[in-house]
Amino acid sequence: MPGPATTHEAAPVTDKIGIVAGGGTVPGQLVATLRDRSHPYFIIGLEGQVQPETLDGTPHLVVRLGAVGTALDALRREGVRRLVFAGSVRRPSLAELRPDWTATRLIAKMGPKMFLAGDDALLSAVVKVLEGEGFTVERADRLLDGLLAGAGYLGRHRADAAAEADIARGVAILRALGPLDVGQGVVVQQGLCLGIEAIEGTDALLARVGPLRRDGGGGVLVKLRKPGQNERIDLPTIGVATVEAAAKAGLAGIAVDAGGAWIVDRAAVIETANRLGLFVKGISGDAV
Amino acid sequence: MPGPATTHEAAPVTDKIGIVAGGGTVPGQLVATLRDRSHPYFIIGLEGQVQPETLDGTPHLVVRLGAVGTALDALRREGVRRLVFAGSVRRPSLAELRPDWTATRLIAKMGPKMFLAGDDALLSAVVKVLEGEGFTVERADRLLDGLLAGAGYLGRHRADAAAEADIARGVAILRALGPLDVGQGVVVQQGLCLGIEAIEGTDALLARVGPLRRDGGGGVLVKLRKPGQNERIDLPTIGVATVEAAAKAGLAGIAVDAGGAWIVDRAAVIETANRLGLFVKGISGDAV
Repeated sequence: MPGPATTHEAAPVTDKIGIVAGGGTVPGQLVATLRDRSHPYFIIGLEGQVQPETLDGTPHLVVRLGAVGTALDALRREGVRRLVFAGSVRRPSLAELRPDWTATRLIAKMGPKMFLAGDDALLSAVVKVLEGEGFTVERADRLLDGLLAGAGYLGRHRADAAAEADIARGVAILRALGPLDVGQGVVVQQGLCLGIEAIEGTDALLARVGPLRRDGGGGVLVKLRKPGQNERIDLPTIGVATVEAAAKAGLAGIAVDAGGAWIVDRAAVIETANRLGLFVKGISGDAV
Repeated sequence: MPGPATTHEAAPVTDKIGIVAGGGTVPGQLVATLRDRSHPYFIIGLEGQVQPETLDGTPHLVVRLGAVGTALDALRREGVRRLVFAGSVRRPSLAELRPDWTATRLIAKMGPKMFLAGDDALLSAVVKVLEGEGFTVERADRLLDGLLAGAGYLGRHRADAAAEADIARGVAILRALGPLDVGQGVVVQQGLCLGIEAIEGTDALLARVGPLRRDGGGGVLVKLRKPGQNERIDLPTIGVATVEAAAKAGLAGIAVDAGGAWIVDRAAVIETANRLGLFVKGISGDAV
């Protein structure tokens, strides 16, 4: 962690990448990738969200979400101009946010509507503000090979006709919700919508749908990008834990937005899906 | 319970009301009301769903959902032509349904699409079939005073501006889902959608949103009739347990569809809401 700043002057601009790190394993994987490439980086870890092991042996500063000024000062001192957002961010209440002076100024610029906006609108506003401060915000999936889901199957299991029908119904439900900036995922079985994910997270969705399943098998988890979702900050994400939870819920498979979702630990996801008998399919908007 | 039927001939048609009784307390209240009025009735209790105390001391027959022929025979024997649906019905899997010969014939008439249809389409098909069999299906809220929600407040607490904004967002979300025959309810706090109800029930929705709430208070449960929801069989319903669960989740109040939702135990709902500090508001489609 750098010592106390005695000046706010920026260091010379470098190619160093600033990682704004939330929860989960994606930030750590990004760090490992940049290390492998010997690419310089600096981590802004979000307090209470970033995994401590992500920060082990790295140049970093942990800040509150509301401590925007502190974060921007540190990034400028480090000569960072390129930013990447990685990992999950739990949205704080106003009370938790405790905005610093810079954050307050930025909030004022965004206007009070931001507090009633959905995540997408909020995150897009954040990107705009950072660009106004001279930073570029880059897509994590451009730096991390294999992160972005493609079209078609991962692994060897396949969706049957019933699963395809469930996927189509899930897509219809998520598309109805997407313009309202709600609906991270949905579980459908035998045409019946067993659950819709709001802010509780996919794990919680999968944990509750198991007992709601009907006899007769099947069932799919569908995750799609919302129309306004900013692919530079936040896309629907699945990983090994998602596949395991879907299996535990008795589902037949998972469908994600090809080009609009992230697969964390692709090789491990494939191995897990093969072992547990689930299909994992990237679906394109045109195909469903 | 009547003895074994030796003939399928119908008794003379009477004014007797046939109550198709699912779970919850509404069927019992309907029975009590008809008793008070000395109106003849006969209960078809849905196996595994009707509360045993609903049937205490009543003329009734308990049948599986799939035993349609058995139920219709009993109703005809009793001279019943007027039917009322009351109480919650958990949708069975095909395996659980075990349709009898009559049910199979009716299912064939409805076509295979019914298994992929949402609840509304399915229930409307059931009503149509019953009408084809010579029965009329009447609204429970026409027999049970105070069951149907009206516009305006129940009890003395009022929605503030933040709650009104949350109600409006909840209405927008439910309206987007309604045409897809999904979305029984939604919880919104500070503009953030904390949860959407699929088939898990309002109690489960309320149980999970408590820990998802942000500091700063507020939050509303909104329940609206879906566009295709058949008011003769099934409307969104709240009762004392709903108010208690909403209070436990820390919400400020509940908004329901005026003219499109049922208030079970109205007096007790008002007393509970007053005591726990929640508003309960009937909202009309035009007002939001």
